[in-house]
Amino acid sequence: MTSSAASPVVPAHGLERLALNTATTKRWTLEEAADGCARAGIPGIGLWRDRVQEVGSDKAASILSDRGLTVTGLCRGGFFTAAAPGERRAALEDNRRAVEEAATVGTDVLVLVCGGLPAGSRDLPAARSTVTAAIADLAPYAREHGVKLAIEPLHPMFCADRAVVSTLGQALDMADEIGAPNVGVVVDTYHVWWDPQLYEQIARAGRSSRLPAFQVCDWVLPLPEDVLLGRGHVGDGHIDIPAITRAVVEAGYQGLVEVEIFNRQIWDTPGDETLELICARHREHLSSFL
Amino acid sequence: MTSSAASPVVPAHGLERLALNTATTKRWTLEEAADGCARAGIPGIGLWRDRVQEVGSDKAASILSDRGLTVTGLCRGGFFTAAAPGERRAALEDNRRAVEEAATVGTDVLVLVCGGLPAGSRDLPAARSTVTAAIADLAPYAREHGVKLAIEPLHPMFCADRAVVSTLGQALDMADEIGAPNVGVVVDTYHVWWDPQLYEQIARAGRSSRLPAFQVCDWVLPLPEDVLLGRGHVGDGHIDIPAITRAVVEAGYQGLVEVEIFNRQIWDTPGDETLELICARHREHLSSFL
Repeated sequence: MTSSAASPVVPAHGLERLALNTATTKRWTLEEAADGCARAGIPGIGLWRDRVQEVGSDKAASILSDRGLTVTGLCRGGFFTAAAPGERRAALEDNRRAVEEAATVGTDVLVLVCGGLPAGSRDLPAARSTVTAAIADLAPYAREHGVKLAIEPLHPMFCADRAVVSTLGQALDMADEIGAPNVGVVVDTYHVWWDPQLYEQIARAGRSSRLPAFQVCDWVLPLPEDVLLGRGHVGDGHIDIPAITRAVVEAGYQGLVEVEIFNRQIWDTPGDETLELICARHREHLSSFL
Repeated sequence: MTSSAASPVVPAHGLERLALNTATTKRWTLEEAADGCARAGIPGIGLWRDRVQEVGSDKAASILSDRGLTVTGLCRGGFFTAAAPGERRAALEDNRRAVEEAATVGTDVLVLVCGGLPAGSRDLPAARSTVTAAIADLAPYAREHGVKLAIEPLHPMFCADRAVVSTLGQALDMADEIGAPNVGVVVDTYHVWWDPQLYEQIARAGRSSRLPAFQVCDWVLPLPEDVLLGRGHVGDGHIDIPAITRAVVEAGYQGLVEVEIFNRQIWDTPGDETLELICARHREHLSSFL
C-alpha cells in the first residue's frame, strides 16, 4: 500500500548531499521520518531495521520511493561473536535477512556492527577472526542481492560489548583479507575522529573503493551515564567534522552525508525542530565543499 | 625526618615484581601507603604528586627509602596543550618541577599525560605537535636529572579532554621524532587493550628500549557516569592482562607491574583489604611467568 498523499522531496539548496538516519529522530515511525525529510528538503535517509520491520520491507520501500528519497543504508547487521554455536548460526541467519531487507528497501549498503567479546571471553584475536570469517561467509549472499557490507569500526570504548573492530585501518585490513569486492567500511566521525591514522586510512578506503557510507555526529563532553547516548549535533562538540568530511570527499566518496545522533535530549525534541537544526548545521559547516 | 619505626619491606613470595600505585588507595597518605606495602610484602610503589607534595619530596624520599620500596614512577607531568601562552609556560615550568620531584623521591620515570584539545580548538594535529614540541623541550632537563619521560597513551575516550595521544604506536612515533634516549612510553592495560596493533607496538617499544613503565587494571562494564573511575581489579573485567603482561615481559621489560585503579568503590574499601586483593590477583594471574 502506497500513500498517494506523499509529496516527493525537493532537495533544498545546500542540502543536496544530506541524509537523516532514522535513529536521530527515534520517536518517529518510518513514514513520519520520510515525511519529515520531504518537508525539510533532505533528499536522503538511512534506516534502522526496527522502523523498517514495523511496516515490513515492501511497505517501507514504497514509503521511501513515493517520496523520492535516496536510501543511504540499512543499520544494522553484525553481532557475529556470540559464544554459543546456536546463537552464532542465528546471527548469520539474521544477517541474511538483513541483506534481503536492504535490497528490498532500495539500498545497496548494509552497515555491520560486528559484536564485542563473547560472554566470558577475553580473547580479542579470536573474536576478530570470528568476525572476519562471518563476513566472508555473508559476502557472496550480499553480492547476489547487490548489497555492500560496510564494516563499522566503533569507538574503542565499545570494544568489549559491541565491536571488536575499533579502527578504520583494522576494518580495511579485514576487508582486504576477505577480498570480496562488496565488503567495505563506514566512516562515522564519532567513532574514528581520535585516530592518529584517520586521514591516511580514509584515503586508503577511497583508493580501494571500500567507502560506501559516511555518517556524522559530534563528540560532546561530559559523556552521559550511558555512553551510547552522548553524541551531539555537528558543531556542538570537539570533532573537526569539516576536515574529516573533506578528506572523505577527496577520497572519492560521492554519496550523502548521513546524520546519525544517539542522544536522549535530541530524541525528546520535536522531530521537525531536530531536522531544522541538522539542516542549519549542514549548511554552516559542510555545504560549501560538498 | 625519617621514621625510625618503619619496617623495611620483605617482598612476599610471588610478589617480587608487584607495585602499588598510590592512586589505587586514594585515601591513604604516602606514609600510610608505604606502610601498607611493607605490611603486604609489596616491594614497589608508584606515586602521584599530590601525596608527595603533601609531605615534600625530601620527606617522601626518606619515607620510601626507609621501607626499602622501589619507586616505579611519578604521576604525572604533561598537560602541555593549554591555549594561552601564559598557561603553556606555566605547564612547562610545572613539568620541570615534576622532573625534580621524580629525581628527589628516587625514581627515574616521570609519567606524562599529555593533555587534550585546547579550549575551543578542534585541531588535533596542532595539539599533537604542541605535545611533541613540549616533550622535546623538556627532555634535556629530564636527562640532566636522570629521569625518563614516559608518554602515556590514554584511551581514545579521553582524547578531547586529557590526552591527544591515544595509541602506543602514536606515542612511539612521537618518541622517535623527538629522538632523545630518555623519552619512552607507558603501557597501561586499561588504555591500550583494545588496540589491534597492541602486540606489535609493545614489541617495538621493547626493541627501541622505550618501555620504562607498565601499569595494569581491568576494563569493567558498565562504565560509570565519570568514565575516569570505571577501572577494576585485575581479573574482574574484559582485558587479557596475562597476555599483555607476557608480551611486555617478552619485549624485555624488567621492571615491576604497577597496579593503578581509579574506582570510587575501591577507594571506599579499607586499604589493607584492597592490597590483599591486589596481591591475590597478582599471584593468580601474573606471578607464574614474572
